[in-house]
Amino acid sequence: MPKFALMNRQIPPVFPPQRVALVGKYDSPDNAEALALAAAWLAGRGVTISIESATAERLGAHPGLAAFPAQSFDEIGRNADLAVVLGGDGTMLSAARRLARFGVPLVGVNQGRLGFLTDLSRQDMLIGMEKLLAGEFRPETRMLLEGQLWRGEELVCDDIALNDVVIDKGGIGRMIELELGIDGEFVCSLRADGLILSTPTGSTAYSLSAGGPIMHPCSTGIVLVPMSPHALTNRPIVINDGACIEVRIAQADDARVHFDGQSAVMLNSEDRLRVRRAPFTACLLHPPCYSYFAMLRRKLQWSERPSGH
Amino acid sequence: MPKFALMNRQIPPVFPPQRVALVGKYDSPDNAEALALAAAWLAGRGVTISIESATAERLGAHPGLAAFPAQSFDEIGRNADLAVVLGGDGTMLSAARRLARFGVPLVGVNQGRLGFLTDLSRQDMLIGMEKLLAGEFRPETRMLLEGQLWRGEELVCDDIALNDVVIDKGGIGRMIELELGIDGEFVCSLRADGLILSTPTGSTAYSLSAGGPIMHPCSTGIVLVPMSPHALTNRPIVINDGACIEVRIAQADDARVHFDGQSAVMLNSEDRLRVRRAPFTACLLHPPCYSYFAMLRRKLQWSERPSGH
Amino acid sequence: MPKFALMNRQIPPVFPPQRVALVGKYDSPDNAEALALAAAWLAGRGVTISIESATAERLGAHPGLAAFPAQSFDEIGRNADLAVVLGGDGTMLSAARRLARFGVPLVGVNQGRLGFLTDLSRQDMLIGMEKLLAGEFRPETRMLLEGQLWRGEELVCDDIALNDVVIDKGGIGRMIELELGIDGEFVCSLRADGLILSTPTGSTAYSLSAGGPIMHPCSTGIVLVPMSPHALTNRPIVINDGACIEVRIAQADDARVHFDGQSAVMLNSEDRLRVRRAPFTACLLHPPCYSYFAMLRRKLQWSERPSGH
Amino acid sequence: MPKFALMNRQIPPVFPPQRVALVGKYDSPDNAEALALAAAWLAGRGVTISIESATAERLGAHPGLAAFPAQSFDEIGRNADLAVVLGGDGTMLSAARRLARFGVPLVGVNQGRLGFLTDLSRQDMLIGMEKLLAGEFRPETRMLLEGQLWRGEELVCDDIALNDVVIDKGGIGRMIELELGIDGEFVCSLRADGLILSTPTGSTAYSLSAGGPIMHPCSTGIVLVPMSPHALTNRPIVINDGACIEVRIAQADDARVHFDGQSAVMLNSEDRLRVRRAPFTACLLHPPCYSYFAMLRRKLQWSERPSGH
Repeated sequence: MPKFALMNRQIPPVFPPQRVALVGKYDSPDNAEALALAAAWLAGRGVTISIESATAERLGAHPGLAAFPAQSFDEIGRNADLAVVLGGDGTMLSAARRLARFGVPLVGVNQGRLGFLTDLSRQDMLIGMEKLLAGEFRPETRMLLEGQLWRGEELVCDDIALNDVVIDKGGIGRMIELELGIDGEFVCSLRADGLILSTPTGSTAYSLSAGGPIMHPCSTGIVLVPMSPHALTNRPIVINDGACIEVRIAQADDARVHFDGQSAVMLNSEDRLRVRRAPFTACLLHPPCYSYFAMLRRKLQWSERPSGH
Repeated sequence: MPKFALMNRQIPPVFPPQRVALVGKYDSPDNAEALALAAAWLAGRGVTISIESATAERLGAHPGLAAFPAQSFDEIGRNADLAVVLGGDGTMLSAARRLARFGVPLVGVNQGRLGFLTDLSRQDMLIGMEKLLAGEFRPETRMLLEGQLWRGEELVCDDIALNDVVIDKGGIGRMIELELGIDGEFVCSLRADGLILSTPTGSTAYSLSAGGPIMHPCSTGIVLVPMSPHALTNRPIVINDGACIEVRIAQADDARVHFDGQSAVMLNSEDRLRVRRAPFTACLLHPPCYSYFAMLRRKLQWSERPSGH
Repeated sequence: MPKFALMNRQIPPVFPPQRVALVGKYDSPDNAEALALAAAWLAGRGVTISIESATAERLGAHPGLAAFPAQSFDEIGRNADLAVVLGGDGTMLSAARRLARFGVPLVGVNQGRLGFLTDLSRQDMLIGMEKLLAGEFRPETRMLLEGQLWRGEELVCDDIALNDVVIDKGGIGRMIELELGIDGEFVCSLRADGLILSTPTGSTAYSLSAGGPIMHPCSTGIVLVPMSPHALTNRPIVINDGACIEVRIAQADDARVHFDGQSAVMLNSEDRLRVRRAPFTACLLHPPCYSYFAMLRRKLQWSERPSGH
Repeated sequence: MPKFALMNRQIPPVFPPQRVALVGKYDSPDNAEALALAAAWLAGRGVTISIESATAERLGAHPGLAAFPAQSFDEIGRNADLAVVLGGDGTMLSAARRLARFGVPLVGVNQGRLGFLTDLSRQDMLIGMEKLLAGEFRPETRMLLEGQLWRGEELVCDDIALNDVVIDKGGIGRMIELELGIDGEFVCSLRADGLILSTPTGSTAYSLSAGGPIMHPCSTGIVLVPMSPHALTNRPIVINDGACIEVRIAQADDARVHFDGQSAVMLNSEDRLRVRRAPFTACLLHPPCYSYFAMLRRKLQWSERPSGH
């Protein structure tokens, strides 16, 4: 039985949210201001506030934050009805990876330019929260990947990713050799800089830079993108999200596996990495006006509809 | 109500097949020999044989074929339990497009090099059929696309594709302008040579040449691949197979829409093409040893598993 | 002896220019205004003005243009010291193809957004001309391609291109088959939608959309870009600009050869297209502040240098 | 004055060669056999033989090699008329980088499948040498890149590459930030996994895997290929081989610069890497039947000319 399944709470969660956790990007005084504003505004509406521990440690001295208790991600997972994340896509990724298994939904507020995942701007933060408390939001579930690294019979690492699991050559810059299998069947040998295994969410991140397709979040697939493959016929492959992917590391040479670019483990030759869809999803709450394609047009600088149409 | 739905027979169809239709590539005497051999072998096992009309017209004078009745694809659809197709991928595509709505399963026998869809070689034909009659085969369903071309309120064309629906610039070589919408939402304007809308089956055909990903037949998506797009950020997009795609032709200039590269219709400015998953699937019967990835390795010249592993 | 060589005048041409021809985009009254303004301003500085014939025919009724004589491109080529082109990149391409062999330098003024070739904005037109008359400009030579289409012993067509010579499938949408030779040596067979042979100037146009590299105008090469090639290992190739390229059309099927997307000829099977560097160059005059890379950054929306650097 | 210029001997070198150095791949007894065979055959024709020091150290105990003196690459450079390299493309790259500055020509003999640079097979080795001594060979010069790494005013590293100079992210897997300048002009900022600066020789190696064009050895350009660039509009760029490229490392994070994948130096933020064409070339001697395009067809598995043509 998957170890995560037991923790997964009923979805949809409690609404309107009564207990809200605030998560912030670590290194910005500006961020503390915004967190304090959100905290004050929510507390004024009777919401119980907590501050994520690492956020509290770095920014909790701010007079607007000092009064609220700190909670670890696990405590937030067990207790909060909602997490409000202030930062960029990286902060959101980090929070989603920690909270998804608990079924806590997330709202992302971006300090700078809107991101792929953080779609509320700082100036619209309070308006957005007011709407959210009034039930005006668009919930969306996003699949995650679970990756298990096996060394012989030992489970070396078991981690999850909302964007991607990336097998990557190390600093010595030497191509790595992999053997790819899907659902127990040999697919191909691969000599490349690495291999990206991406969710639809991650398809607009690293995978896209490496030549992968954009996958709409409603599409149910996993995309495998070889990075600078030696053979020009090795191309991105989309497979069913029910598939079990196994990558055998034939030649490691300082290679690593990265989860969302946030945690990494060194690989040895003969290691086997098993990746499949995680048994839970992340739940993102978007503003009512949210449109995936509008976000793509803005981020990818697609030209708008010509005037007059 | 989709017009095709009523015709769709129960799947899986009758087995062992008692009425088998033979479909051949038109222009090869060698093909007539193979068809006659298949016909004689099947008739000898008590199977009722028919020859597809156009095949019969071109090759039916062969002494081994003259005795069998000719049937149109529609008659085959209503009467046959199985179609055996001798030819290449093009012949198979053509037969599948005509027979899919009736639920008649297809077996493909290739005269030359094995194809993406025709996976029984001529020399293994009889062995393959013997196994098939014994129930040793791997059935596989493949989704199709249905495309409707609307000109104002008029439905100009309604056709299906197993590989792809392709909007393509015409001979004058001028870029076309499209507006892409999905499920009623505007996605982007596109200035390009064209746009390929491909099934997983078609993802290894034209779509691959134009930069699209390989999509495993078990993945459930539609891939949209812009051809030589003016904007470098227009990239292949994979969407859910339940989506309804609408393409508005902003500037036609001799453009056309092609279905599997086998039928085509001229486009006018302001035409709208609506593409979605067809309400029926094609059923392919593979030999027991069939492996999609083995076929990919062979067709794409992926290097095999290194010796010693 | 190349037929063009005799016409080529000495470069650099007469400066300051005493006889200036004006060339305009055909279908805009706004364009007539700008042409009239340029004409009046130049005439007021003692420059002799002529209007290119087709421009004069369409826009010459404008009171500010009626007084000036019309000249064909050939007449301009023999008589003018400079051509001022008002329009977009297409207008500039057209003028350059007609005037390059005569050595007449060109200045491009863009009515709308600046182009790859037209780098003076309408509002800066007079300032730009003033500088130009004062000798403040950056001349740049650009290579052209000459393409000869041979059908047996017959020379069917002999044309030039500043951007690209493109062999393209026709409207029926069927892949074409080519055989590519360079300097008399067989290179490869190619099954594809077409083949783009591009100059460095054209490398940011169609070639780029089809996956070709950007070639700096100072680089001396010709780039060959297959369009949607059947074989994934057929990739863009850069060859020396002294090479003689020969393409044999193995299977034509409605294919054509296009020169700068402005003139085209139907291809037959067994036709041979010979492409090499033209024996003359186009001379573009840029404003003193012109920077090729700044232009690229603007047109390709490359992000600018981060602030603080 | 470039430090290399003084060492460069007159080219073409002495022919027929009287002093030949043998260079081998380090780790194969089979290789010692082939070296001994070559040594015996050449000595029998009056040629003075030496063995490259590292090769001698590893394989020199072989009875057929023990009699010959060992020489460092520098000694070979000053004394030999020719280097015969037995190994793969990596061995050839290594020898060429060490010997190019001395003008010593190289012949490559491949133990396994023919390479891009090693075009004499083991079984044809003696025939090839016989022809070579008889003057039957095709000499070809290949440009190299020289890269200087500057840290403030300190020259940290000065190395050369026959294939490529590669700036690459390190093992932590974080994108690096660069600023690219050419001939003193700012080109663009780049956020990417790295940047490949490749010669035409290297264009079929790493550069090709990363999406760069194939550059014929006779083309005179340097190709810059961004690896998985964050901005989809950052594309391969070909520039004149006379250009001086400067890359400023804005954010290093464990990044390195690699020369032909054979030597590497860690990068610091604010380091500047200056790359330009080396002042000498490598001289390869090919068999008379050598064809660059035939080699490409074989290595890239381009389909051959269809039969009947």
